Amino acid sequence: MAESRIVTFSTDFGLSDPFVGILHGVVLNIAPETTIVDICHAVASYDLMDGAWTIAQAYRFFPARTVHVVIVDPGVGSQRRPIIVETQDYVFVAPDNGVLSMIEAREPKFVVRHVTAERYFLQPVSQTFHGRDVFAPIAGWLSKGVAPAEFGPEISDYVRLPLAQVEHVGENSLRGAVMKVDKFGNLITNIGEVDAPALFGGNVPEVNILIAGQTITRVCHSYSDGAEGEIFAIVGSSGYLEIAAKQASAAEKLVAGAGTPVGLVMNSVR
Amino acid sequence: MAESRIVTFSTDFGLSDPFVGILHGVVLNIAPETTIVDICHAVASYDLMDGAWTIAQAYRFFPARTVHVVIVDPGVGSQRRPIIVETQDYVFVAPDNGVLSMIEAREPKFVVRHVTAERYFLQPVSQTFHGRDVFAPIAGWLSKGVAPAEFGPEISDYVRLPLAQVEHVGENSLRGAVMKVDKFGNLITNIGEVDAPALFGGNVPEVNILIAGQTITRVCHSYSDGAEGEIFAIVGSSGYLEIAAKQASAAEKLVAGAGTPVGLVMNSVR
Amino acid sequence: MAESRIVTFSTDFGLSDPFVGILHGVVLNIAPETTIVDICHAVASYDLMDGAWTIAQAYRFFPARTVHVVIVDPGVGSQRRPIIVETQDYVFVAPDNGVLSMIEAREPKFVVRHVTAERYFLQPVSQTFHGRDVFAPIAGWLSKGVAPAEFGPEISDYVRLPLAQVEHVGENSLRGAVMKVDKFGNLITNIGEVDAPALFGGNVPEVNILIAGQTITRVCHSYSDGAEGEIFAIVGSSGYLEIAAKQASAAEKLVAGAGTPVGLVMNSVR
Repeated sequence: MAESRIVTFSTDFGLSDPFVGILHGVVLNIAPETTIVDICHAVASYDLMDGAWTIAQAYRFFPARTVHVVIVDPGVGSQRRPIIVETQDYVFVAPDNGVLSMIEAREPKFVVRHVTAERYFLQPVSQTFHGRDVFAPIAGWLSKGVAPAEFGPEISDYVRLPLAQVEHVGENSLRGAVMKVDKFGNLITNIGEVDAPALFGGNVPEVNILIAGQTITRVCHSYSDGAEGEIFAIVGSSGYLEIAAKQASAAEKLVAGAGTPVGLVMNSVR
Repeated sequence: MAESRIVTFSTDFGLSDPFVGILHGVVLNIAPETTIVDICHAVASYDLMDGAWTIAQAYRFFPARTVHVVIVDPGVGSQRRPIIVETQDYVFVAPDNGVLSMIEAREPKFVVRHVTAERYFLQPVSQTFHGRDVFAPIAGWLSKGVAPAEFGPEISDYVRLPLAQVEHVGENSLRGAVMKVDKFGNLITNIGEVDAPALFGGNVPEVNILIAGQTITRVCHSYSDGAEGEIFAIVGSSGYLEIAAKQASAAEKLVAGAGTPVGLVMNSVR
Repeated sequence: MAESRIVTFSTDFGLSDPFVGILHGVVLNIAPETTIVDICHAVASYDLMDGAWTIAQAYRFFPARTVHVVIVDPGVGSQRRPIIVETQDYVFVAPDNGVLSMIEAREPKFVVRHVTAERYFLQPVSQTFHGRDVFAPIAGWLSKGVAPAEFGPEISDYVRLPLAQVEHVGENSLRGAVMKVDKFGNLITNIGEVDAPALFGGNVPEVNILIAGQTITRVCHSYSDGAEGEIFAIVGSSGYLEIAAKQASAAEKLVAGAGTPVGLVMNSVR
């Protein structure tokens, strides 16, 4: 069955070394018809939560059956297991360190397998580059049509990361955190529609958003709605509340970043 | 009609976020056979002129019928229109903010359409990421064979950016400007063959080039012609006069950059 | 004969300009079915040894018949020759400046041709961007099936770079050097299995590794084996000894980089 799929990579490898090119070569050597997409290679080094966030933003925009490879792997060369995860529409390949925890939080089906079939690895397997020797080959063989079950047994004791939760600290108040600063300096929080439905509807209520010692009261409908120098809130494209500034970096203005707490007080609730 | 085209992206999104990977996913989800090329994602944030310059350097090296998507979009989420432009050989997709003005300056045919057919957008359209929800889907459907006329009506009141003109300030003198500093620190000006044909011919006349308080008199035929530490002029690959230094950054040596004025005095004209 | 191959690029062009996108366009304009892979565009500017190292790490992971284009070209526009090199499994395209010397050191077959057939170039050939006008077109025509012999005659006086050798300075001592600092700050040396077989076997002997005024005695089996703050040695994925630190940059801790000498004294030899 000559199939071939899309394979994506999300890693902390950066683009200053030949690492990423080598990943592409390994996949194409196994499955030459594969379309490879680099989702992002700028995940913060060793930062599992940043890797988890990155793939969670991107995976659902790809065609069904895409193989998403996520490599943030501080335990490379140790005994941590390589895993394959099947969800309703996608297949994921990653080290078993929790980097797929945000996918599990979003997907009803989440079947995890421990990859034990070393015959699919590039031999000899190095101590330091399992992206090349383990994860890219698995993706190549998946793209070529090998079924996930061929790679190893289902497991249930896989690693789960504790995800930052939004806390409700009163009837109209909640406390979240910044998850990511994007390239433009927008601060993307973990406060979503489920946490504060009124904020995401047509009639935005009066709010006080507390972050880094400042109080923000305005929720804009586009970045360009903001005034020069103003810091404002906006519903971002990931479906989460963002703190932004017009053509400027809110992160720099507020000296805030991933992990910064964000308080939200709604003066009237829907 | 199973066709598929090349789709290119030129944006100010950078590579530190999953934005670019998501653009690829959206296109492939609509038109899986598309070949996607990233021309450049390092356009200066919100800088329409830098975006205009970037696509103008690159577009004509692609096969006919390529779809070029250009996203530098400070007005995302506001009422600015998405447009499709057809030239003799290419199709462009961009926000209507003038980022295609340098294409218009080069192409005899330049037919602009306002994209009003929201059925082609990813729903719901976010307030902050029209690259994902509007521009990439348009490109995907164009790649799949939907004709530009299906997307909306022709318009003539599209936005045009004022382009930096070379001024003739005397019989043998002209005044231009630096348009771009490249990765090597070369200063690419807007002075082209049409402005100073003698400079671009076989016998280069004596010239004085004035930039950042210095006078340059030598026009080299290759970067390696220059002496160690020398700053010299050269006809660059875009067809414009460049100011360069041998294996060094002319931009740093001169403390010059985009917008720096450049004077040119020819002592003898062809 | 409708064939098409994989074409890879390794350059010092960076990603801040449209250079790389243009290379892709030129290849696709000649051979639209080509799969193009960017191995790395972050080779240090003008640094032939860094370019040589980059392609040497990556080339063998690609399918046979891949065309590898390597462009680090301080002599662009001068009389230096463009060359095509055939090895057992691959074809290389590069300027004749020694950037393929590490390939020659690894491959028994290494047939070099001077590309003289200017009909394959993009005309007019610029003085400053032979990547676009010379090297990418050659790759495109190779991908389309033109045989290397069509491009020009075999030569033997091509440029060879002197490669850093590991010196044996006593029965159990040798002296090498750092070749590369990777994105994680690991210091990759030129000391390989052939130089110190005992280090690469199962029972690692006691060693003293001298670098930047420090002595390292521990050889770990994975990055995560190291203690917090410890600097240790490890056999890296390229088959060379690396100096590393756990989730930290050994390069920063040691203030070391490409060219830093590395001494190795084995207290017992296998």
